[in-house]
Amino acid sequence: MVLTSTRIGQMRSGSTATVGMIGGGQLSRMTQQAAISLGVDLHVLAFHDDEPAIRAGATMHEGSHLDAEAVSALAAATTVITLDHEQTPTETLAALVDAGHAVHPRPSASEYAKDKAFARCQFAAWGLPIPAFEVIDANADAANAFGDNHGWPIVLKAPTGGYDGRGVAFIDSADALATDTLAQNTPTWLLEAAVPIAMEIAVLVARRPSGDSVTYPVVETVQEAGMCRELVLPARIDTDLAEAAAALAVDIADRIDVTGIMAVELFVTHDGQLLINELATRPHNSGHITMEACRTSQFENHLRAVLDWPLGSTQLVAPAAATVNVVGIDESDSFAATLPLALEDPTVHVHLYEKGSRPERKLGHVTALADDVDAALTSAHGAVDRLVGR
Amino acid sequence: MVLTSTRIGQMRSGSTATVGMIGGGQLSRMTQQAAISLGVDLHVLAFHDDEPAIRAGATMHEGSHLDAEAVSALAAATTVITLDHEQTPTETLAALVDAGHAVHPRPSASEYAKDKAFARCQFAAWGLPIPAFEVIDANADAANAFGDNHGWPIVLKAPTGGYDGRGVAFIDSADALATDTLAQNTPTWLLEAAVPIAMEIAVLVARRPSGDSVTYPVVETVQEAGMCRELVLPARIDTDLAEAAAALAVDIADRIDVTGIMAVELFVTHDGQLLINELATRPHNSGHITMEACRTSQFENHLRAVLDWPLGSTQLVAPAAATVNVVGIDESDSFAATLPLALEDPTVHVHLYEKGSRPERKLGHVTALADDVDAALTSAHGAVDRLVGR
Repeated sequence: MVLTSTRIGQMRSGSTATVGMIGGGQLSRMTQQAAISLGVDLHVLAFHDDEPAIRAGATMHEGSHLDAEAVSALAAATTVITLDHEQTPTETLAALVDAGHAVHPRPSASEYAKDKAFARCQFAAWGLPIPAFEVIDANADAANAFGDNHGWPIVLKAPTGGYDGRGVAFIDSADALATDTLAQNTPTWLLEAAVPIAMEIAVLVARRPSGDSVTYPVVETVQEAGMCRELVLPARIDTDLAEAAAALAVDIADRIDVTGIMAVELFVTHDGQLLINELATRPHNSGHITMEACRTSQFENHLRAVLDWPLGSTQLVAPAAATVNVVGIDESDSFAATLPLALEDPTVHVHLYEKGSRPERKLGHVTALADDVDAALTSAHGAVDRLVGR
Repeated sequence: MVLTSTRIGQMRSGSTATVGMIGGGQLSRMTQQAAISLGVDLHVLAFHDDEPAIRAGATMHEGSHLDAEAVSALAAATTVITLDHEQTPTETLAALVDAGHAVHPRPSASEYAKDKAFARCQFAAWGLPIPAFEVIDANADAANAFGDNHGWPIVLKAPTGGYDGRGVAFIDSADALATDTLAQNTPTWLLEAAVPIAMEIAVLVARRPSGDSVTYPVVETVQEAGMCRELVLPARIDTDLAEAAAALAVDIADRIDVTGIMAVELFVTHDGQLLINELATRPHNSGHITMEACRTSQFENHLRAVLDWPLGSTQLVAPAAATVNVVGIDESDSFAATLPLALEDPTVHVHLYEKGSRPERKLGHVTALADDVDAALTSAHGAVDRLVGR
């Protein structure tokens, strides 16, 4: 794509701001949707014009997040740089900051999402509630000792690079360590005690550089094979626990000085304790439900936060909502014929990312609003089943 | 813009449909926003890549709605053709239908929005409630007789081509006819009795080719110099009148066999009677409030209707909402500095169209949700005042 001089390096007439987002996936795609309302021109660093954000009309900068020059060119064309994923090298982002570019979240904050071992160590130092853990160079003896100490199975994580369950393994025994692929390929191990989990929840915080923040109502997340499959809003927990979760999320946001949207994923144990699982310092799958269920979506508040603009109301607009992810079955998935079937229920809202299908790839999501959680879940699941032809 | 062969004439992998929209204004822009969710590729016939829909990322087809070849090329690239305005010649659209293209609304339905004299005559034939009217070749004697008969002032309308108050004049006396610009430049006059109006309201109907339709809650519209300035939802009328208005709108939708969104603008007289003012057979300014105030926006339901997909819920998500249009003051208007001020109220939602400013040009709108109409109006007006620097 040829970018004319009116599009690069200066704000176009009528625009309110120019934001650069590294990565062209569905998070950038839905951010583009929010950008349209605000008159914000979203520029996206993407490999190919078939990526979800470019299909949605974001201005494309062709290139890789691993190419510091490409990232720098995006920064030169925009007012602020933000992130669709955690894969951009920290030194690349730090160099932008050194050169005077606004980067939100700042590299010091996104490090907590990028490096799980670093985050665990800091949370421990701050006395925040986390599972028992140890960070070691790959070492079966130490892992055995950890498992014997905290009970098997143990959770082995690659400190960086994982997502949607990749980079996480449940290790049943010392023997399994010798054959586990992740264990073999990860030079540093983050070991965690496997916590007996009653529920997983997430809290989204949108936070401005000035420190002002808003939290969204606590969302319940249902994971399967490490990937988020389903969201329920509000989470089926009592008010005290919801308030404690929100307070913990704000505390973390303030401590790491995050800017933009941050999602804190939490475990709720059977005895009602909260434990921090991990952070995302960007719009997050657990926030997709906010597009219809809250007055201001996570994507709009992310833009407003990184631009240091006042944040919008996160109030719920219905008694209950549920979101079910649409996950690829095989390469042949197409929704052109099945979308009308999914829409037969007038309470559902379908979001498709225009991605090529692959097994286990997130291709879209469906949100239903209803008077209660069960009705919302039934509607959302029914629509997804019709969409994927189940 | 160069369109590659993968973009024209066939649906891209991952898309659910390809829709062609004639005209690149704010209605196409907000339709593009809705298209992203549904995985619909929106192609827009526009003069210039600076038009609102192209700025939002719709695929541009450069050309004029007055060029039948350009319209035909858009149709060849898309599954269905729909409209951002009423200015496309009827014969151009009829030729598409004859050639087997899907056009929604059909030319026979959009004629009711395009030709006010034709619509008045049909409504009269059907016995629908309308003001007293007469359609005549420009003729001062006949107009005098009409005014003497129905009382002065009379309303003179150009049967076609008017919008936002253009093409409508209030004529106080026979003398005024001799000097009125509109009267001099309009060969055929649509004369109407000036109705004493207690309130103006609008009803949006989304209707599929199959005949299925949904109506939106009745919205109150506040006009000033013929342009819609303000919307209030729900309209401050009693339930019986709201139900009568909705029933009338559905009756009209069925009679004219409209497809897509239709807005029926109605007068409420001081004695509580409904009179049809005019129709729009496309997304309409009175429906902008549905983006936040209803579960499914008029733009999404327009797409779903013209694609003959099931329609979404029109249920309100807040007790009250108000929308205030952002109208240009002079050429220097820019919102880059004032948008953050407008957003200081967390209950407001700002939509900017990235248009160059001109006096009286619609540049955006602000919607506020609240517990009551007065609070919503106060919030929306406050935000617009801060946006335009009042």
